[in-house]
Amino acid sequence: MKLVECIPNFSEGRRREVIEQIEAEIKAVPGILYLGTEADADHNRCVLTFVGEPERVGEAAFLACRKAAELIDLNKHRGEHPRIGATDVIPFVPISGVTMDECVELSRNVAKRIAYELGIPTYLYEKSATREDRRNLANIRKGEFEGLRESINTEERRPDFGEARVHPTAGATVVGARAPLIAFNVYLNTEDVECAKRIASRVREKNGGLPGVKALGFYIEKRRMAQVSMNLTDIERTTPLKAYLKVVEEAARENVKVVGSEVVGMVPVSVISEAARSALSLMDFSDEQIMEKRLLELLLEGER
Amino acid sequence: MKLVECIPNFSEGRRREVIEQIEAEIKAVPGILYLGTEADADHNRCVLTFVGEPERVGEAAFLACRKAAELIDLNKHRGEHPRIGATDVIPFVPISGVTMDECVELSRNVAKRIAYELGIPTYLYEKSATREDRRNLANIRKGEFEGLRESINTEERRPDFGEARVHPTAGATVVGARAPLIAFNVYLNTEDVECAKRIASRVREKNGGLPGVKALGFYIEKRRMAQVSMNLTDIERTTPLKAYLKVVEEAARENVKVVGSEVVGMVPVSVISEAARSALSLMDFSDEQIMEKRLLELLLEGER
Repeated sequence: MKLVECIPNFSEGRRREVIEQIEAEIKAVPGILYLGTEADADHNRCVLTFVGEPERVGEAAFLACRKAAELIDLNKHRGEHPRIGATDVIPFVPISGVTMDECVELSRNVAKRIAYELGIPTYLYEKSATREDRRNLANIRKGEFEGLRESINTEERRPDFGEARVHPTAGATVVGARAPLIAFNVYLNTEDVECAKRIASRVREKNGGLPGVKALGFYIEKRRMAQVSMNLTDIERTTPLKAYLKVVEEAARENVKVVGSEVVGMVPVSVISEAARSALSLMDFSDEQIMEKRLLELLLEGER
Repeated sequence: MKLVECIPNFSEGRRREVIEQIEAEIKAVPGILYLGTEADADHNRCVLTFVGEPERVGEAAFLACRKAAELIDLNKHRGEHPRIGATDVIPFVPISGVTMDECVELSRNVAKRIAYELGIPTYLYEKSATREDRRNLANIRKGEFEGLRESINTEERRPDFGEARVHPTAGATVVGARAPLIAFNVYLNTEDVECAKRIASRVREKNGGLPGVKALGFYIEKRRMAQVSMNLTDIERTTPLKAYLKVVEEAARENVKVVGSEVVGMVPVSVISEAARSALSLMDFSDEQIMEKRLLELLLEGER
């Protein structure tokens, strides 16, 4: 079973009927599992989340982008969040049975279709980036729609696909593959936030800690505990379990103890089964032995 | 999401076309997830496995039983495995979001329908049993079809539902709810099978060990290790994690160590997440945060 998550961002957070029409394009693709919509009126932006097999997810993203180009005119769009496109950014995230390379391939195909079928220039970012400076979305979005309109025909800003001029109303779109991001917090048996900050600094990648880990130390009033708060941006290399064990180790150096952890939001089952393998010293366990995963596969096969 | 597993056993293991017609009845019910068929020619018996929401699973089990009554004549049936019915036994097992009581209720409804709509007397067993001596399937099946035909009108053998005479060709059927059974083995860093047997004896329920645990000690040639082999028959009370920790504790008393474990076959995701909660000291984690479980729920809702 190959599952990819897509979380496209559109430049509309106020007109409910516009958001609904974009949603409808996605939901109409067979085999798409629609997880939800978040709209923000101040940002004037919405984020749609759905999951499915790669080609179907790519098709749904393309159709949604086409509909957004029909309904959203960036010349009339005002909001607090920076944006360059009616469809601003389309990230593809591998969830199950799919490699990052497959997601990069998928993102390239969708970016091409948007450029050549819709006339909207596209940029590749994150793992799909063709240039180092385009890994970071902020670089691509510099100057927003209005600034890009003036500078798109320069060497620096030339799109990856499509002509070097923005679509008159839909702007440009950024497409790419990225790893699932897991927000993972670990609590310490101390109220000393400085202690949590020292541990965070030793855990984070930037200081030679674990790959893909961003970490900060906080004091959490509600629990009266110091917390090491992490974003795991590369769970193929640093899983929650690895991050947890590293914090336990660093906490011991500080003479404090880990008392608990929390995962914020959704996680792939593989993250959970990795931790279970450790707790039970499981040998030869396959995620295919998990009933709910097997049932999901069966249902998705049935939809083909 | 309410999920129940059903694993009915039919008295046909040779005529593939008969088995397929029974399967077809089950697969035709919307929302049924068909997991597989195992047929044994010597036993002349097949076991079908499927999962779904309670009422649908009940409907599928009833339809399969009706078809089996059309196609199987016990007067002509010979096989090594004891049996009293064309549909011999129908177990319902809670998988997710469903209590044992709901499965008992479901089993009673199906048993009534089989008795009153098909004229096949039914017995309730395991958690659904109305009499202590009927918890054990072997007691109900005593004397098989031929013996039951003679004795069914005695007090001891009177069915729970239906008249006190076997169906002339389909016999009688046993229906009931039971806990999912997990086969769970733990390996020790010793080749001493006696050590594994001592640990097994202290772990098993019969000797005051853990609820619902059956345990034996073996020597496993392939791994050159002694093994504590367990059947967990009540995972609401004794999960694999609890059984594992108990074996670790008992192993320490024997001065040996646990080196690994294995789960045989399928397990509900709740079993895996419980172990993950322990490994990560997770606080406030819900199985609803597991992507694949959420997606399965979405798909099943879509089938309604």
